[in-house]
Amino acid sequence: MKKSIKPLVAALAVVVSASALAQQAPAPKPETLIKWRQSVYQVLAWNSGRIKANVEGTYNKDEVIRAANSTAALANSGLGALFAPGTEQGKGWHDTTVKPELFTDGKHVGELAGNFAKEANELAKVAATGDQAAVKAQFGKLSGTCKACHDDFKKKD
Amino acid sequence: MKKSIKPLVAALAVVVSASALAQQAPAPKPETLIKWRQSVYQVLAWNSGRIKANVEGTYNKDEVIRAANSTAALANSGLGALFAPGTEQGKGWHDTTVKPELFTDGKHVGELAGNFAKEANELAKVAATGDQAAVKAQFGKLSGTCKACHDDFKKKD
Repeated sequence: MKKSIKPLVAALAVVVSASALAQQAPAPKPETLIKWRQSVYQVLAWNSGRIKANVEGTYNKDEVIRAANSTAALANSGLGALFAPGTEQGKGWHDTTVKPELFTDGKHVGELAGNFAKEANELAKVAATGDQAAVKAQFGKLSGTCKACHDDFKKKD
Repeated sequence: MKKSIKPLVAALAVVVSASALAQQAPAPKPETLIKWRQSVYQVLAWNSGRIKANVEGTYNKDEVIRAANSTAALANSGLGALFAPGTEQGKGWHDTTVKPELFTDGKHVGELAGNFAKEANELAKVAATGDQAAVKAQFGKLSGTCKACHDDFKKKD
């Protein structure tokens, strides 16, 4: 390479590098992450309420499948990213109700999150059969994993 | 049936009927439905932001799959139920931004919702291939269906 064009190449590299950085979307703010995770739990509550109403009352197989699939997809969606460092405190739709321990006890959090995903995936499978009693039993197991995490990592209202 | 037990049978029927009603979960309040639908759109925004960051920057196949699957499951989850009669106005997390036309132009709403689900399901398929360019193109199509619905049925901020 000729010496004379070295500065140009170096300058271009800087420009290209700056351009690449500009293309990267900025990381979401902590408040946005908190709002998103609070939203996820509301969607889970919607699905949970629908499944509960179906197993305790008139059963609609298709509605339960939709609610169970949505729950499983959310359980598998990488929710941990919504609990990034910096989101220990703060306000999304409302002040976060997460306990500080969630950010320090990764092993236990991972176990509980794994249980949640496991039972949610199983519920999606069972829902596909349309067996109301089996869905009710599996929904009970899934609800248990929700409660386990709330007990340990959610502040009381 | 003997005449004498008719009143008892009738009374039992009332009791059973009341019991069945008591088992049915009460219908969610309009404000709750609005909060849930606003939450769904926030979760979609989270997923959309993740996919955008991946197709425009460093690509993580697994993260895109998770986000695309979650989006598809939500698109298929029966969102129409969150726009039940009685939710034309009201406050969930904030005042609803839905236009009144959404509740009267069912045919057009159905078309737009169908397009959204179609492109979201296709994105989930394409995401599974890990082809960044193909995901980017399909994500563009999906985003177009979001915009189409916002243009027609979401009040401007």
